Amino acid sequence: MGSQNRQRVDSVFRLRIADIIRKKRDGESLSIEEIEFFVEGVVNRSIQDAQLGAMLMAMYIRSLDSEETTYLTRAMTHSGEVLKWPAEWKGRIVDKHSTGGVGDKVSLILAPALAACGMKVPMVSGRGLSHTGGTLDKLEAIPGFTVSQSHANMIKILENVGCCIVGQTSNLVPADKIMYATRDVTSTTENIGLITSSIISKKVAESLDALVLDVKIGKGAFLKNEKDARELAQRMVAAGNGSGVQTVALLTDMNSPIGKKIGNAFEVAESIECLHGNGPNDLTDLVTRLGGQLLYKINAAESMDAAINMIASTLNDGRALAKFRAMIVAQGVQEEIADKLCRKGADVFEVLPKAKYTYEIQCAKSGHIHSIDSMNCAIVTGKLGAGRAKAGEVINFGVGIHLKKHIGDAIEKDEVAMVVHHDEDGIFPEEFAGLLKDAFVIGDHPVTHATRVLDVIT
Amino acid sequence: MGSQNRQRVDSVFRLRIADIIRKKRDGESLSIEEIEFFVEGVVNRSIQDAQLGAMLMAMYIRSLDSEETTYLTRAMTHSGEVLKWPAEWKGRIVDKHSTGGVGDKVSLILAPALAACGMKVPMVSGRGLSHTGGTLDKLEAIPGFTVSQSHANMIKILENVGCCIVGQTSNLVPADKIMYATRDVTSTTENIGLITSSIISKKVAESLDALVLDVKIGKGAFLKNEKDARELAQRMVAAGNGSGVQTVALLTDMNSPIGKKIGNAFEVAESIECLHGNGPNDLTDLVTRLGGQLLYKINAAESMDAAINMIASTLNDGRALAKFRAMIVAQGVQEEIADKLCRKGADVFEVLPKAKYTYEIQCAKSGHIHSIDSMNCAIVTGKLGAGRAKAGEVINFGVGIHLKKHIGDAIEKDEVAMVVHHDEDGIFPEEFAGLLKDAFVIGDHPVTHATRVLDVIT
Repeated sequence: MGSQNRQRVDSVFRLRIADIIRKKRDGESLSIEEIEFFVEGVVNRSIQDAQLGAMLMAMYIRSLDSEETTYLTRAMTHSGEVLKWPAEWKGRIVDKHSTGGVGDKVSLILAPALAACGMKVPMVSGRGLSHTGGTLDKLEAIPGFTVSQSHANMIKILENVGCCIVGQTSNLVPADKIMYATRDVTSTTENIGLITSSIISKKVAESLDALVLDVKIGKGAFLKNEKDARELAQRMVAAGNGSGVQTVALLTDMNSPIGKKIGNAFEVAESIECLHGNGPNDLTDLVTRLGGQLLYKINAAESMDAAINMIASTLNDGRALAKFRAMIVAQGVQEEIADKLCRKGADVFEVLPKAKYTYEIQCAKSGHIHSIDSMNCAIVTGKLGAGRAKAGEVINFGVGIHLKKHIGDAIEKDEVAMVVHHDEDGIFPEEFAGLLKDAFVIGDHPVTHATRVLDVIT
Repeated sequence: MGSQNRQRVDSVFRLRIADIIRKKRDGESLSIEEIEFFVEGVVNRSIQDAQLGAMLMAMYIRSLDSEETTYLTRAMTHSGEVLKWPAEWKGRIVDKHSTGGVGDKVSLILAPALAACGMKVPMVSGRGLSHTGGTLDKLEAIPGFTVSQSHANMIKILENVGCCIVGQTSNLVPADKIMYATRDVTSTTENIGLITSSIISKKVAESLDALVLDVKIGKGAFLKNEKDARELAQRMVAAGNGSGVQTVALLTDMNSPIGKKIGNAFEVAESIECLHGNGPNDLTDLVTRLGGQLLYKINAAESMDAAINMIASTLNDGRALAKFRAMIVAQGVQEEIADKLCRKGADVFEVLPKAKYTYEIQCAKSGHIHSIDSMNCAIVTGKLGAGRAKAGEVINFGVGIHLKKHIGDAIEKDEVAMVVHHDEDGIFPEEFAGLLKDAFVIGDHPVTHATRVLDVIT
């Protein structure tokens, strides 16, 4: 009787899901009820895998409009646990998300800087599945750092420190876990509506007051042109705002690597330099502008300039560094190791892993560096072991690239432009050397490296 | 090691399938290798359900061109067993397929008529999944008739009788079984390329020399307009010819019911009338024209008229009836029952099931019958139990409709236009009576019921 009844329920259910799939198949817009019904079915597994694949393909080809994207984002957010915070934090809970770049270590600096400004930053981050590691991979280059933290631990760390950088718990947006895995095998990843709901639902489930998005454009970004990036940024801002999180997006240039260091341990090292107030200009500029947007958005500063200065001062007076040190200790790093990393003048590679060999790339001619192809740098560091081609692969934290010169610098023929740190026994592969040499465009006239921020989308 | 290797193979496989899905997603045409790879993966289950769902949706929305349809048909045909026949039958192995209509009992008459002309007809047929039963359901109204026959049995029956009408064995076109079930739940059924490959692959797997298709158009058909039907017919003819089976299609009118009897046992009864040479004109016309096309196609007659006459004469001289009798006996019906069905002047309802009650539909005004809505008739017979709403439901063989008058007949107000045979205890449902009354269009001027054949597609 019970099984017969379930069959009947299943049958009715299938009918309705087939109708919703048909509607999207024919290019119609789905209602909020239909989208909620779909997401529920994904999570409770009453929707068959084949139906999910068909629906994702219909959504991909017919696309989701802005309203559907917001509905989907909200439904996905509520498919699992939504993080709850103490009432007294209200108005100060913020986070940042980047669509991913080369040498992008902004989170490691910005989270502590925001904490130093009195914010609560419950940053749930990801691992890399491309040429370079993700934020969690970078932090795991620090011996002892533990990305897996319970919600109760997160509250304790945010209470005491103000920021944490952790991995996604299994109960946070389970709909996204299932849909993302299915999109991966059904060639339905690169779609603005689906990308937006995947990213924003996870951020909304953090119960944020405000969110800043860093949408990257250019050679080293997954979006190569400004039109696509702008559309994605607009959609994400709408979905964030539509889900109750004040959201702003910056379109930023990702043609050349961010800062001078690429690779997991190298990026931790450069983050610490930046937290000492000695970061490369482009990186510091990006950190302060992203953080400034957040502080201004939640009225923590009277003007945008004041907001940017608030972030900058935490880098210059050591308060952000202190928060970074407290955060890594709270997440499992021993005090002694934290000291060796954060004390002024320390050689961080006493504790961070470093590759065995170095290989120098010389400049082919004299002139001024006009650009450095970030994609070439990413491909080589990836092949050297800094990233993973598929989930679960082991990362080599110690390999990376150290740019000796950056855009705007004058350089002489045969001068060292970059040093590659690698673990390749024998001769350094010629094709890697070629890619890195080719990355540099040298011109006759001087150029200045302007801000990476191209536009702000609110 | 073995498991690691399988992972590696799986990973390579997934990559390639994802690439093929992407190609179709973007509207490109697939190559024969890609389509074969896809069908292989469907059958050996290396393609995940979600990937199959996504691919079918991409094929549905982006559509398959004529070449892709032929490739898909061929690949599906060879996904399982392809029936083999004695060499001496070469040139005489024929079959017919209909897209489905109301009162469509043509197969029950045409298969024996073709056998009487010396043909071999290994008809693999289906069950109904709509308002009325399929050919197999109709035959199962005859006590003892067994649709499930091994390939060895089929050869024996074809050797001795010349025709059989059987169900699909599990090994015939397994790709279609999986794809059809998936299309059903993913709203990807009504697509010309997918319909074509599903129908034609099963017919090609019968190793036919020639095939005639009856593509129905109108109220009682799944294709309501001629444009769609013509496109489907052309595509099926191309796929059949492209797979080595000489194929011809007839576009036929399915606005009014075929013949005067609808419902499983009733259609067996009318088939036997037709095999006695006493069938309704429209039915006999359809049988002889469909069969004539086949005989002419394989050069068994010098002209189309001669071919049509060959079929007609088997109906008039009892040879087709004798084949029908021999076929049902070969497929499990006792001699005594076969006699009671086939002997001249017999009351076939001595052995066929008949519903308990009758309900008469009177004509609302005097005049000439201009049309009878076959869909209304189908809906009512379906609701009375003649069809099934979902696979596996039990059919009531005894319910049906007997038209007392057909198109072209003069009729008086309050004269009985049809008799409904049903098993509804209590009052006959008013909405059924209304639907059936509404089915008749009565006009003032006389009309003639022309042939149902609208066009021939070769």
